[in-house]
Amino acid sequence: MEGGTQQPTRVMIGVNQSTIKGYPNASISSRVAFDWTLAKIVRSNTSGFKLLFLHVQVPDEDGFDDMDSIYASPDDFKSLQRREKARGIHLLEYFVRRCHEIGVNCEAWIKKGDPKEVICHEVKRVQPDFLVVGSRGLGPFQKVFVGTVSEFCVKHAECPVITIKRPPGEAPQDPVDD
Amino acid sequence: MEGGTQQPTRVMIGVNQSTIKGYPNASISSRVAFDWTLAKIVRSNTSGFKLLFLHVQVPDEDGFDDMDSIYASPDDFKSLQRREKARGIHLLEYFVRRCHEIGVNCEAWIKKGDPKEVICHEVKRVQPDFLVVGSRGLGPFQKVFVGTVSEFCVKHAECPVITIKRPPGEAPQDPVDD
Repeated sequence: MEGGTQQPTRVMIGVNQSTIKGYPNASISSRVAFDWTLAKIVRSNTSGFKLLFLHVQVPDEDGFDDMDSIYASPDDFKSLQRREKARGIHLLEYFVRRCHEIGVNCEAWIKKGDPKEVICHEVKRVQPDFLVVGSRGLGPFQKVFVGTVSEFCVKHAECPVITIKRPPGEAPQDPVDD
Repeated sequence: MEGGTQQPTRVMIGVNQSTIKGYPNASISSRVAFDWTLAKIVRSNTSGFKLLFLHVQVPDEDGFDDMDSIYASPDDFKSLQRREKARGIHLLEYFVRRCHEIGVNCEAWIKKGDPKEVICHEVKRVQPDFLVVGSRGLGPFQKVFVGTVSEFCVKHAECPVITIKRPPGEAPQDPVDD
């Protein structure tokens, strides 16, 4: 069925940092979504797939880490931006390294903005075969305060979307943490 | 990565009859979902996957085909039930035959009831790794009258769900047809 000229299946995976541990650690739900994709979809067929990792940095959230920084010149802001970007790069490094070890082709990149909007925009631009997004698996009450990127993508992304919920055993004490 | 003892990925696919052509023809969206699963997920790794085809027969809808039948004895109803079931079996035959040709393991079965409820119930019972459902890709106005099995399953099925929309080129003149 698979000829030499057939393109690999291009799977976009949205990944983010851990809300507990911060950069460069990946969130539990990102890791669960990635591991699930390898175990259940890619399996041994490493040449049949290409993984596209998208990390969206939220400008406001990132600013919090620099509450104690002093900004005295425009250059201080430039170095802040560099540091923010560097943290995102370290996050992506984890996924790219694991792909490299297994022998799966991949690409990874960072965008800034509202994750749900940016993911849907990037789907439109990159046109993956499908999108994998992790989910904390929150109840309806918890969702109100957290917002659910996965639900938005299922509705609005212009490609098939599969949402991988964090197994109950991997949820931290406060399920809003990730 | 894949040892001899590793279980194949079990993919449940909900399939139904065509609303235009009736039994034993599969709906366009069922065929699209099946073809997508083969092309984008299974690919050449035929031993890595097992496809589980579930067809849910809607009791009321099926009765329509027998508007001109005359029921004179309890046996007439029995034969009707047999005929209904036979039509569902012919629908499943299409998918099982194609899997057999490609060399993918599969199972297929029929249940009666409300498709969205039955699919979620069967997911709970069979515990597939994920569920694939086709979708006509209707707009919000059209959905009101048709109901969307896929949206219900995305919300309620106890496994990851991927919805495959019918490409615009394959939609009939009236998109409610399938």
